[in-house]
Parts: sequence; C-alpha cells; structure tokens
Amino acid sequence: MPIIHDTAGRRDRLRSQLRSADEPVAALVVSDLVNVRYLTGFTGSNAAVLIDADDPSADRVATDGRYITQVAAQVPDIAPVIERACVPALVEHARAAGARRIGFEADTETVAAHRALAATLDGSGVELVGLSGIVQRLRAVKDADEVALLRAACAIGDAALAAIIADGVLRAGTTEREAARALEWEMYRLGADGIAFETIVAAGAHSAIPHHRPTHTALADGDFVKIDFGAVVAGYHSDMTRTFVLRRAADWQRDLYDLVATAQEAGRDALVPGAELRAVDAAARDVIADAGRGEYYVHGLGHGVGLEIHEAPGIGKLAAGTLPCGAAVTVEPGVYLPGWGGVRIEDTLVVTEGGPDLLTATDKTFTVI
Amino acid sequence: MPIIHDTAGRRDRLRSQLRSADEPVAALVVSDLVNVRYLTGFTGSNAAVLIDADDPSADRVATDGRYITQVAAQVPDIAPVIERACVPALVEHARAAGARRIGFEADTETVAAHRALAATLDGSGVELVGLSGIVQRLRAVKDADEVALLRAACAIGDAALAAIIADGVLRAGTTEREAARALEWEMYRLGADGIAFETIVAAGAHSAIPHHRPTHTALADGDFVKIDFGAVVAGYHSDMTRTFVLRRAADWQRDLYDLVATAQEAGRDALVPGAELRAVDAAARDVIADAGRGEYYVHGLGHGVGLEIHEAPGIGKLAAGTLPCGAAVTVEPGVYLPGWGGVRIEDTLVVTEGGPDLLTATDKTFTVI
Repeated sequence: MPIIHDTAGRRDRLRSQLRSADEPVAALVVSDLVNVRYLTGFTGSNAAVLIDADDPSADRVATDGRYITQVAAQVPDIAPVIERACVPALVEHARAAGARRIGFEADTETVAAHRALAATLDGSGVELVGLSGIVQRLRAVKDADEVALLRAACAIGDAALAAIIADGVLRAGTTEREAARALEWEMYRLGADGIAFETIVAAGAHSAIPHHRPTHTALADGDFVKIDFGAVVAGYHSDMTRTFVLRRAADWQRDLYDLVATAQEAGRDALVPGAELRAVDAAARDVIADAGRGEYYVHGLGHGVGLEIHEAPGIGKLAAGTLPCGAAVTVEPGVYLPGWGGVRIEDTLVVTEGGPDLLTATDKTFTVI
Repeated sequence: MPIIHDTAGRRDRLRSQLRSADEPVAALVVSDLVNVRYLTGFTGSNAAVLIDADDPSADRVATDGRYITQVAAQVPDIAPVIERACVPALVEHARAAGARRIGFEADTETVAAHRALAATLDGSGVELVGLSGIVQRLRAVKDADEVALLRAACAIGDAALAAIIADGVLRAGTTEREAARALEWEMYRLGADGIAFETIVAAGAHSAIPHHRPTHTALADGDFVKIDFGAVVAGYHSDMTRTFVLRRAADWQRDLYDLVATAQEAGRDALVPGAELRAVDAAARDVIADAGRGEYYVHGLGHGVGLEIHEAPGIGKLAAGTLPCGAAVTVEPGVYLPGWGGVRIEDTLVVTEGGPDLLTATDKTFTVI
C-alpha cells in the first residue's frame, strides 16, 4: 500500500497558522520527530524541519550524515541541511535569511538545549518564540489516507486476536508472556510493520493492574484475561483491549463486564464532532460512578491515536477543548478491583458527522473462552 | 535472576554530589524515567523522584493513581506522592519543606513544562536550578549486578544469532524482515524480556545504509548481510553487530571486512580507564582514514549501554571527557560504500583495569555462510 502522504499540503496548513497566530513568527523550527515525519515523510532518528511562514521554497529539512541518502529519497521536495545539531542549524539558517521572530516547539525542546541555543543568539536581535501543540493539533484530524492506514492496522489486530483464539493459545497453562508473543507474531505474520506498544496480557488478579507487564504466570480457568495491544502499519498505530474469562465465569465477573461494556457504549455514543472532551469522558465515567465503582476507574476515557499511540486529543476529566471531526480516538473505560481482577474494553474509532466509525471490529459480547 | 539493585546506595551517591556541586541545591527533582528507575526501581510510565541533599527520609517518589500498587511494591523504602503532575508535586513538596534552591533535570524538562512550573513559583522565593547529566554520569559506571545483567543480555544475543544461523535462516530467499523476526523470536525464546531496539538486517546494497530498516527484500548469494540487534534483560540492553557474506565473497568484501575488523580491534584496545574519549574514537578512525576510507565512516565509534541502548559516555570525534573504569560501551566502526555495501562490527564491552571485558562473544572472523 504505497500511500504518498500530502506532506506539502500539511506544511501549507501549518504555514497559514504561523501567519494567523496571536504571536506570528517568521518561521517555525519543528523538532519533534513525529511532527517532522508528519510534515516531511522523513523517518530518520535525528532531524528537524524549518517551515517558513510565507515561502515554501524557504523550507529546509535538517539531518546528519547517516541520512544523506534517506532524506533525499523521502523528502525530495525540501532542500536539506546536513548537520548533526539540527535545531541550531535551522535557527541559524532562518536568522541568516532575515527572520527575527523564530518559533520553536516548547513541548519538545529541553531547557538545556534551549538555553544553549539562546546563548548563541545573544545580541543577534533574534527572538525565539515557544509554541505548544501547533503541529499536534493538525495531526489530530486524520485525512482519508491516514484513516485507511489506521483501519489496516486495526484489521491486523482483529485478525491476530482471532488467530490466537482459534489456535487455542488462550487456555490454562499458557503464560502471559507466551500469549503476548503469540499475538505479536501473528501481527507480524499478517503484515504489521511493528508492534504499537508493549503488549499487555494480564490474567487473574493481574487484570486489576491497568498497565500490567506480561509475566511468566500461567493463565488459569476462571481468570479474567485482559489483552491490550496494537499493530503499526506505515507508522500508524492500532489500539484495542478485550477482556475474556477462561472456561467458567462467576457472577461478579459478568456484572463487572456488563458495567464496563455499558460505560464503553456510552463513551462511543458521545463521540460527536464538537463535543466537549470532558463531556465525552463524563458520559462513560458517570455510568461507572453511578454504579458505585468510580474509585476503581483510575484513568481517562481515551486518547488520540495515529503516528503515535498516544496523541491529541486526550479525553479525560481535566481535558480542555472539543472533539474535532476527523479525530481518531480510543474509548477505553476500565474498572479494576485490586486482588480480584479488572475489565477494560477499548476500541479505536474515527469521529465523523455520521457517527463514530468503528475501526476495531472484534466482538465485545461477554465471552467465556 | 531476582537481582535487587542497591538503589539506596545510588541515591546516597547522588545526594553527596548535590552537596558538593559547584552550585549546591537543597534537593533535586529527577524526572527522566530511566533515571527514576535507576534511583528507585520503579518502572511505571509516569513518575519523578525527589532527592534531598541531606536527609534520605525526606526523599519522595511521585506517580499517578494507576501505579499505587506498583510503586508500593517496587519502592518500599521511599514515601509516595500520588499525583498525575509529578514534577510540580515534588517541587511543591520540597518548597513546603523549606527548600529554596531546587534542582531539576535540564536535559529532560521541556521549555513549556518549565515555564508553567516557574510561573507557579513566582514570588515564592524558590530558585529552580537546571542540572545536566548528573544521574547519567552515575549510571555510566556499572556495578557487578548491572554487569551480570548486561552479560546475560549479550549471551542471549550470541545464542540467538547462532540459532538462526544453525537453522539456515541466513540464506538466499529469506527476506530481511523474516531474518529480523526470526532473530527476535529466538531472543524471546531464550528468555529476553524485550528487544533492545528495532533489529537491523541489511542485505546487499542496503548494508551501506548505517541504520537500515528491514524490508521485504530477499537476501541473495554474494550479499553482505549486516545484522545489528540486542536483547533486554531486566531493563539492561545488549548491542552487537556482525556482518557476513552469503555463499561467495568477492575480494573487495574481504578487504573491506579486514579494514573494519582492524579498526574495531584498535578501538577495543583503546578502552583504557581514564582514556580521552576522543582518543578512543581516533584509535579506530585513524585506521580507516589511513586506508583512504574516512569519508565512508559517518558515525561515532560507540556509546554507553545499560538501562538505555544509548547512554553516557558517547565515544566520538567531538566527545568531551574521559572513559571511566566500569563503563559499559560499544565499539562499532563501520565503512559504508553507497550502492555496493557496508560492514559494521560491534561489540559491547566493560572497561576494567585489566583490559576490556568482552560481553558479546560471537566470533568476528570473516565468515561466508
């Protein structure tokens, strides 16, 4: 699937924001590597890109000598600057071209790097302006090609989970680690470029630990088995959680599952373009709180997903802002009863005017395997 | 191998440095997650630790509600602060306890986070002092338990590579990705907790790309096959590169290999406690430059390895400082001929008074498979 992203269009959208911002800048140096990839297609491990507020031909991409061939192939439409210290090199380039107000990514640059850079500019008349989340907000709204890649990644996750269930991996005696590795192996076999994050397989009491790392503990009949995992396709991540019971389910497990499933459905139904993020979170949280289980739901409802597994928008109790149309987000409430077990149910969806587009298709009916 | 690291001893060594520094601070807030793990044993994804310059009982570890159980289990000897915004919470704790000069990690804190924090302290009389690399310098010198874990990780790498060679994976027709996945699978089978970094398998002309990502290209007879990979054991990373030729070798391949092998040996021989880092780099680089191939050696000689795959000390042309006794480092010169192919040979070693301790044991003789 050789999708060529419209990186020039993305740069132009960013460019127009630089001009219209409250504090306009003559140019922005983007140093977050995921943002660099989004704006240029470059995937190397050391890079930055200079976006001129007016003139596309003044844009520059910087990387070091290891990537001379790669940057020419991946970014044929921006002139390169080959220099190990990418941000200082691009700031100097902009300064030499006459820029006086130069933006930088305040969420990426460290205090130490910024102080060193500022010291070199002392007396130059250049003002460095820290901007927050400007590229991340562009990235929150996915275009059709991005949705296609997310859909492909989610489909691999669905198929891989179905495969290990069909193969009988989820049975008493299999260790959490064995199940995690089997799932990852299936994702690779199905064409994943990578694993989206460290696969979580949490059995029995471990399922009550939200971010459990798989151990050598064996699954046992009667266990909740919580599986949170994803695939990467061309840089785009899938994210899905399902919770099963092995062989025989207790009433408390059915009740807990039903509660989380009801909350998750309420969360999905709240995915309306323009909705307050806090209201989306509350739609699911209130279901759990009303059942008296609020204290056991210890995280936010979901997060954006795309070139990063966690990106804008975050959907939580303290989230500010609204849900943009075209955002790809997870909805993943969970209730965790320490010592007993926990349930999380998570989908990845795209927010559309016609209602959320569900990318993770694995059934969510209470299932005893 | 349930090694319990002496985290209290590490904190005390850091504490004494806070008192003796040029700019002493009353307390340091450590927010780099690897440094937090090193100092406390905590492995969650959101944390910080407050180190008091005088009183160990005033130390605090901060994390959020997802990790209440985990932090109690992993860090029984430091009182926890449960709060999502870890750094502000610990700075406030130190301020309330009377600290006026509070250190922070300037290489970790972003400009945006720091500005927000500084704004809350306006008029409080607190001075935030940015420190660089203070914990990283402690981490550069490994203790016996850390060396044991590095040795275990390297042994898994050796055994996994031997296994895929014995299984006939490295032959014409196998794709780069298949070889990478087979190697990773073997590392897991041999007990690795994780993969140290994205495995590099680069065949033919791809071997001339220093950081090539494995593709669906099939290996072919006559190819250089460059394999750079590692395992993680209890957080500690191994790192090794070997380059083979498939079936039949050309004279230029033997010559190129011999050159890199000679340079690599010179680099290993230069691993003497107290040596200037630049001199270690030069020992290998001069061999390649003297052969007229300097322009095709486009990276540094090596790097520290431990809880991170790349950590202090860096060994390169521009490196400052000396090589401490007890450092674990890689030695990995490479020569890359665009369009033809490249060779890199890399070991992980520990610097000792009696000469470098070689942890990666796979043979480095020129090998046609």
